[in-house]
Amino acid sequence: MTNEIHGHPLVATIEAVTIWSVNAYCQTKSLKLTSNLVTRALDGLFVLDLGQIYNGSYCGVLLSYLGAEVVKVESPAGDPTRWRVVGRETHPFVMLNSNKKGVRLDLKTERGKDLFLRLVERADVLVENFAPGTMQRLGLGYPELERVNPRLVYASGKGYGSTGPHRDYPAMDLTIQAMTAVMATTGFDGHPPVKAGIAPADFMGGVHLAASVLAALYQRERTGRGQLVEVSMQDALLPSLTSALGGYFESGGTLPEQTGNRHNGLSVCPYNVYPAKDGWIAILCMTDRHWQALCRLMGRADLADDPELATTPGRCAQMDMIDEVVGDWTRPQTKADLFQLVTGAHIPAAPLVHLTELVADPHLRERGMLRDVDHPTMGRVTVYGNPLRLGDSEPVEPRAAPLHGEHTDEVLREHLGLPDEELRRLHEEGVI
Amino acid sequence: MTNEIHGHPLVATIEAVTIWSVNAYCQTKSLKLTSNLVTRALDGLFVLDLGQIYNGSYCGVLLSYLGAEVVKVESPAGDPTRWRVVGRETHPFVMLNSNKKGVRLDLKTERGKDLFLRLVERADVLVENFAPGTMQRLGLGYPELERVNPRLVYASGKGYGSTGPHRDYPAMDLTIQAMTAVMATTGFDGHPPVKAGIAPADFMGGVHLAASVLAALYQRERTGRGQLVEVSMQDALLPSLTSALGGYFESGGTLPEQTGNRHNGLSVCPYNVYPAKDGWIAILCMTDRHWQALCRLMGRADLADDPELATTPGRCAQMDMIDEVVGDWTRPQTKADLFQLVTGAHIPAAPLVHLTELVADPHLRERGMLRDVDHPTMGRVTVYGNPLRLGDSEPVEPRAAPLHGEHTDEVLREHLGLPDEELRRLHEEGVI
Repeated sequence: MTNEIHGHPLVATIEAVTIWSVNAYCQTKSLKLTSNLVTRALDGLFVLDLGQIYNGSYCGVLLSYLGAEVVKVESPAGDPTRWRVVGRETHPFVMLNSNKKGVRLDLKTERGKDLFLRLVERADVLVENFAPGTMQRLGLGYPELERVNPRLVYASGKGYGSTGPHRDYPAMDLTIQAMTAVMATTGFDGHPPVKAGIAPADFMGGVHLAASVLAALYQRERTGRGQLVEVSMQDALLPSLTSALGGYFESGGTLPEQTGNRHNGLSVCPYNVYPAKDGWIAILCMTDRHWQALCRLMGRADLADDPELATTPGRCAQMDMIDEVVGDWTRPQTKADLFQLVTGAHIPAAPLVHLTELVADPHLRERGMLRDVDHPTMGRVTVYGNPLRLGDSEPVEPRAAPLHGEHTDEVLREHLGLPDEELRRLHEEGVI
Repeated sequence: MTNEIHGHPLVATIEAVTIWSVNAYCQTKSLKLTSNLVTRALDGLFVLDLGQIYNGSYCGVLLSYLGAEVVKVESPAGDPTRWRVVGRETHPFVMLNSNKKGVRLDLKTERGKDLFLRLVERADVLVENFAPGTMQRLGLGYPELERVNPRLVYASGKGYGSTGPHRDYPAMDLTIQAMTAVMATTGFDGHPPVKAGIAPADFMGGVHLAASVLAALYQRERTGRGQLVEVSMQDALLPSLTSALGGYFESGGTLPEQTGNRHNGLSVCPYNVYPAKDGWIAILCMTDRHWQALCRLMGRADLADDPELATTPGRCAQMDMIDEVVGDWTRPQTKADLFQLVTGAHIPAAPLVHLTELVADPHLRERGMLRDVDHPTMGRVTVYGNPLRLGDSEPVEPRAAPLHGEHTDEVLREHLGLPDEELRRLHEEGVI
């Protein structure tokens, strides 16, 4: 660490200036902050977030929680997720856009594009997840922006990526789930395919995109240059299918695709969601030790002693019998009692939790992963905390998502120095 | 970028030495590589991967694809996923451990622990996802390792994290799905809960952990210090539930939790998987323009012109009718024809793909996301490529996962300089 500026006058004045001014100052002077000024991983970085719906927006909110200044740039129409409810923001929008500043900017006007390019000059990262070709049609593809700012990390979230025969297919979470066999492998054998209740393609895509940005920022420390990074939602989703693909390859494609609540490769047993008196309980035995402990709880020394059941492959061969035994044992008990009993024996287990319970979950609340903030049109609203916990980084207290264009003037004034008169004119012309 | 060493003799000799020697050299000299030597984001970084099963292993493989030297350290028993099939590695193990070197090391012996600490001294990153308390019991918690190497980024993947009332619960993907309402929100209303066919908690946890590592490495560039980073699988999974949580909050908890293949907040319509003559097709209309285009395809000008159906909330109010109309239109057609027709009109759609089709998917093959490598015990085997595409980074050609302890001698010799005689003794004593 040789190029820090210990004792430089910057240290004394730092608290009087805003983060983005520090960023600008350091970029200008090619200096880095001294370590005692860095309280978060991405302090001083400036991110232009063109993300919309879930994928890009999630990438942006992760970067904001790492300390970056994230400016969400929306068209005059706004993020499609913002307006699905009449008269106020939607919960999904507010949940994925905490901490961001909101800028309304019409990139289809020459003036709007020009202002955007001036922001790009000062930006460290741009995030976008438009349909294929959109940025190119706007004249805002990577080659154009690289010319404006070679230090820019340009992050492109796409459904299928920019190469390969499917690159131009329109893509959303539902279609990626269909195309990546998530639906084919969810649900009970012989029943209709069913999607996951989560949006795994959008969010796997979004967090992989954030990881790519961070890798490129790290590389920039050594090369001095940004780069184009890309994540295909399908690529990002694929590895989470490892159990099903493993089962497919191991069996030569003879296993059923849908395995209900059993392991998707049918290669762990017990592994299921068993009935309880008042709901359901998930129990699984990853190791032979877990199985021995479960047999003790069930009072089934005979099974514990059966050499045919001593190993995972042996138990998998008698899955129906074992699931019946475990289910008969769980059925008359409450899920709370079972949970305490089974986890008390260090066997992985969990009661099946409903949304009503989840939103009040004392654990997620204590960790600050679910928390309430005040929003101007919605009042008190629940948002996510930061899933990336860095021990030596000061936590970011979440700020409610911006209104449409809430910080347009502020950002253009502070980053580009636009005078009030010009801002007024841009508003009149509908550019901002 | 002031502290690079343009023209330094290192440049001339670089190709003759191995990556880890460069790393060691640069650490010793406090130098950075010049930009023309950096071909990948994490070139020269040394990662100790104690990851097991899916979560930690996925984090490690992502770092390997970014150019880091990743050494997977396994106990004499080996990663539980390695041995689920008798006599050879399993497919899941091989799919998640490409590019890594394999070291067998008994951390429960004093000598093994001592060797490990010497590796830690030279490491940039450590990844672990053991059960809560395991590393502490081994005397390898963050405070101990920070003393050995303050530049170390110590990445801890946990089920519920190290704080909060649930912190000590044993956790696996299945239990996190249960505890985070993924099961409660998957499947058809009135039917049993069902888990997702993927392992979203493991993989969301793994990629968030990789993102945390990258953020901490970036912060280290400015502070000179590593830190403890932690990702709870539950925290990482939670945001992907945004549609369901949005629907819950918007409706005051009155929506059904399980919505089959409909949007989990029931706030987009059409949005479903519709029957085709030979399977299923997913179709959704995120915008009013999509709806208008779909009505044209269906020859239903009457619906296109109905002002009550012109907006998303209006269509959601008549979801049953619309799903019936769309289903009646799709039922007599093949999924391939429908796919071409609907995506041709720029409406997001996808045929439901089965595992047999997925493993041969020409798009995933062309992008190199699914690719075949040779493995000593398994022959030709399919593994994942890199979902993190960095435009200016040279791609890593995947190398098959290591055998148990395949590189023990090599790593201990090259990183710690152990002579052959000592290696022989350590083998005899069962330490390695």
